Amino acid sequence: MLPQRYIAITERKQAELSAAIPEEWRLPSKLIPEGMLSISESIAEPKYQRVGVMDIPRTCGLLTTKELDLTENFGIRALVGEMTEGHVKAEDVVRGFCKRAAIAQQLTRCLTEPLFDRALQRARDLDDYLQRTGKPIGPLHGLPISVKDTFNIKGVDSSIGLSTLAFKPAKENAPLVDLLESLGAVIIAKTNIPQTLATLDSANHLFGRTLNPLNRQWTAGGSTGGEGALLAMRGSMVGFGTDIGGSIRVPAMCQGLYGIKPSNGRVPFGGQQNGQIEGKGRIGLQAVAGPLAHSVADINAIMGEIVPRAEFFGEDCIPGLWSAPTPSRNFTVGVLKTDGLVTPLPPILRILDEVADSLRRTPGVEVVEIPLPSALPKCQGLAGRLMGVDDGSHMLDLIESMDEDLIPWLQGRMKRGKALDVTQLAKLQAQRAEVEKEMMKMWTQSSSSRSRRIDAIICPVAPHPVPEIDRYNAVGYTSTFVLLDYPAGVVPVRPFLDSDLEIGRAMDDPVLGSWDKANRKLWDEKTVDRRVYLGSPLSVQVVTPKQHDYQLFQAMELVDRAVQGRASPSAKL
Amino acid sequence: MLPQRYIAITERKQAELSAAIPEEWRLPSKLIPEGMLSISESIAEPKYQRVGVMDIPRTCGLLTTKELDLTENFGIRALVGEMTEGHVKAEDVVRGFCKRAAIAQQLTRCLTEPLFDRALQRARDLDDYLQRTGKPIGPLHGLPISVKDTFNIKGVDSSIGLSTLAFKPAKENAPLVDLLESLGAVIIAKTNIPQTLATLDSANHLFGRTLNPLNRQWTAGGSTGGEGALLAMRGSMVGFGTDIGGSIRVPAMCQGLYGIKPSNGRVPFGGQQNGQIEGKGRIGLQAVAGPLAHSVADINAIMGEIVPRAEFFGEDCIPGLWSAPTPSRNFTVGVLKTDGLVTPLPPILRILDEVADSLRRTPGVEVVEIPLPSALPKCQGLAGRLMGVDDGSHMLDLIESMDEDLIPWLQGRMKRGKALDVTQLAKLQAQRAEVEKEMMKMWTQSSSSRSRRIDAIICPVAPHPVPEIDRYNAVGYTSTFVLLDYPAGVVPVRPFLDSDLEIGRAMDDPVLGSWDKANRKLWDEKTVDRRVYLGSPLSVQVVTPKQHDYQLFQAMELVDRAVQGRASPSAKL
Repeated sequence: MLPQRYIAITERKQAELSAAIPEEWRLPSKLIPEGMLSISESIAEPKYQRVGVMDIPRTCGLLTTKELDLTENFGIRALVGEMTEGHVKAEDVVRGFCKRAAIAQQLTRCLTEPLFDRALQRARDLDDYLQRTGKPIGPLHGLPISVKDTFNIKGVDSSIGLSTLAFKPAKENAPLVDLLESLGAVIIAKTNIPQTLATLDSANHLFGRTLNPLNRQWTAGGSTGGEGALLAMRGSMVGFGTDIGGSIRVPAMCQGLYGIKPSNGRVPFGGQQNGQIEGKGRIGLQAVAGPLAHSVADINAIMGEIVPRAEFFGEDCIPGLWSAPTPSRNFTVGVLKTDGLVTPLPPILRILDEVADSLRRTPGVEVVEIPLPSALPKCQGLAGRLMGVDDGSHMLDLIESMDEDLIPWLQGRMKRGKALDVTQLAKLQAQRAEVEKEMMKMWTQSSSSRSRRIDAIICPVAPHPVPEIDRYNAVGYTSTFVLLDYPAGVVPVRPFLDSDLEIGRAMDDPVLGSWDKANRKLWDEKTVDRRVYLGSPLSVQVVTPKQHDYQLFQAMELVDRAVQGRASPSAKL
Repeated sequence: MLPQRYIAITERKQAELSAAIPEEWRLPSKLIPEGMLSISESIAEPKYQRVGVMDIPRTCGLLTTKELDLTENFGIRALVGEMTEGHVKAEDVVRGFCKRAAIAQQLTRCLTEPLFDRALQRARDLDDYLQRTGKPIGPLHGLPISVKDTFNIKGVDSSIGLSTLAFKPAKENAPLVDLLESLGAVIIAKTNIPQTLATLDSANHLFGRTLNPLNRQWTAGGSTGGEGALLAMRGSMVGFGTDIGGSIRVPAMCQGLYGIKPSNGRVPFGGQQNGQIEGKGRIGLQAVAGPLAHSVADINAIMGEIVPRAEFFGEDCIPGLWSAPTPSRNFTVGVLKTDGLVTPLPPILRILDEVADSLRRTPGVEVVEIPLPSALPKCQGLAGRLMGVDDGSHMLDLIESMDEDLIPWLQGRMKRGKALDVTQLAKLQAQRAEVEKEMMKMWTQSSSSRSRRIDAIICPVAPHPVPEIDRYNAVGYTSTFVLLDYPAGVVPVRPFLDSDLEIGRAMDDPVLGSWDKANRKLWDEKTVDRRVYLGSPLSVQVVTPKQHDYQLFQAMELVDRAVQGRASPSAKL
């Protein structure tokens, strides 16, 4: 039996969410696939049918032809250009995206706080300003965007799916929200996350489980899962999430989007509700904020506006240019096949080989194999320990204060731990410094000549394809680059094909350990029907050295163009 | 009674140090002023006479005319140019500086590890290389430099003045040492520091007290005090120290030198012996490494070579350019007169006014008063607490392991503390983030327009002139900018004059608190004869926003030229 006050809050929050969607934006119930009816059912690891909902915005008839065009056919710069040149009103653009976000919400539970009314009001204000002054308010004038529920917006809840935090609206904006709004962006919604933010699915008792719009059998990923689903349905132009173990990159991978985890200090991170004691990131592992987007060009457009201004908004940011000197030699990409803990499943290694081959055919690019750095297998464990330097009580206290249950996936996994003492904590950070020192060698010529040899590496995002709900395994491929503060992004490559199935062929590599063993279950035909992966997006992770974030964009652009078979202009630089 | 093993080590270390100075570089005993005879006497806060030793290198006859010229009349670029263009051999340059360092050591106890033999061998190798290849080994080819005793050099002790660490040579170079040597610099000595590194004088039982060569009544400052004395006597071209509470800037001030504490990540810090648990800087307050030098031009020359390469040597460094975009408006300097905790003594406020007036007369410069930021008075306490997050046992264990006494100044001040738990530690870091956020406002137009208003501030280095030995008070003016990670440098302005004495005039400002009260004692004619300050260097501190280190150099250059009455080319940018 759930306690009454908890049920009351949940129902009130659901009613509020529902009321934010106007009647005329509601889908006819026949269009809504099963599994959207009950929040509690959505959380309990349900068995879904292979159903995708990606075509519904086009077929449901709720969007005008113009709205379909505006929401589907523009990149950031082009869309802002349409508005600032007066071809279309910001209000019309924002309404199109709000509608589409409302549709996405009805099909995937991707939102926590629809902000449609205030977004439309803000759009009208922007239109007035443009008409009055002849000038846009900033370089993102009218751009519809969304943010993870963790980011504070004055007057809006940051409940992060916990009933105890509901109906306690934030008192001020997060610095990132201030920054984006100062540039003219319009926040149309906040998006769903998992209870505790510490899972790679996005399910909680307040908002239910976010479903993957490509196929609701697959996880939408987490913890920025709501953004993943919303962006995939083009209900937003850019979505901001946070990433400590992979929480931007995993949803990007699961929905076939582009996403980056910048280096520390490039995007303001402060002003969030994350259920942790304040200041924890500064002594343990610091999560970072970053965008999910529809293209590398959009990543470039949004980061190019944020990075040079970040130091004026975030006390946690440093000055930065969004540019890089032109290298005088070939752009060199290293291929890193394994983290030494979990051997990637065959389709993951194949996609990596395919991307490497495409890069080899790109003029101006050199591709080299990277031998496993000896320190790399230490990274996952170290990152994990640095995430848990306190006993985790603050989050569990919040949950238990309302007698809320842990979601099924967390039961047995989430426990009060033992806080480290400062000596243990310092020792962990000293071990991290040692690992950083070892890892530096991956990028340079030799210990005598320390000039740069490798400009970027490509590696798996995960050692497995997009898995079914609640089956994501091994965060080492993503958390490692938070530990090392290397910027890292996800580039979707192609769908999983019949030829990737290899029915009847088992992996014969030796099992490396418990993580590796668990990973094999996602490929073992005794425990999984591999055909579940058919059509799922296969992606690659791109990584550059610490604080080389513009170079990450350049490398992602190279990879993106290479896999699309187009010659890359960057490669000729 | 001192334990025998401890006395034995001390004597052995002294013998080693003495043996490193060749007979022909020894000063006749008549030239050595009193107070250099016994280490223990030097530590026990002795009453010295007003004696300066600055003229002895010129008058003692040990240096040739050529050596006097090479050690006195060149900046870094000119001196390296002399060598790379073949006008002078690196061996001759290095010998001149080694001799001068040996003289400084005999007069001030500034060295811990003279490295004359290996420096001369290295210089000969450089000369061979140049002759063989026609090319210098790097942009600092043959440059004689020195480093604080904390920096590890393979095969050399990093005893930091503790007998228990003596005769335990380092197994590998600090990354900064590797970086400097890769550029062709020649390390001629390591330099003296205080026991525990946590005082602003430089006295320990192993090497005695470093004396200020300008006047041995004044403190040489600390903890990079050996560098201060060595540089002042031109026994080295650049000295590298570290700074957490002011340990680079204080000796610079005490000896009338230029010195900067860079932002975090600009100069490799790792590979040092500091008697602390490893990793402590990452969870508490991170000290930074930086140079003391003879001019702003030399600061520019050395930082310009280090900063762009730092990321390849230090795992604790980030990529950086040593340049800045040309601002499109006047360079704006804010004048910050007080930290709100300790009112600067009259000569300190006067020097600040004089510098502000000089800047006001500089074309292209705007000067504004900075009202006391509300968060500023919190900085000193917060920095202090973040320096002491553990119980300090590691250092005390090292000292007690040899039954070594604390030096007099530390007795009663240095105790085993109580380590914080992680929750307390995180809370401190959260408070720091709040302070950082508040302090951001000092630099920008307003909360709505976040563009930069102030490019640099000038403020006191200390609230008092160079004090007598062991009387330095209040580190808030220096530790604050480590807390905030603002780069900060010291520019000497002019000597303390008769007109600064104001004999008979007392301070009538209200006393702000215990730190302020202690500071007044340095001006109160009942407790001090103000004439002790006559001739001492008065300096000003220059500070720029976080990670704007090149801008700090620009601002220091502006200030330096303004106070020297020359028009500044930078001001016209």
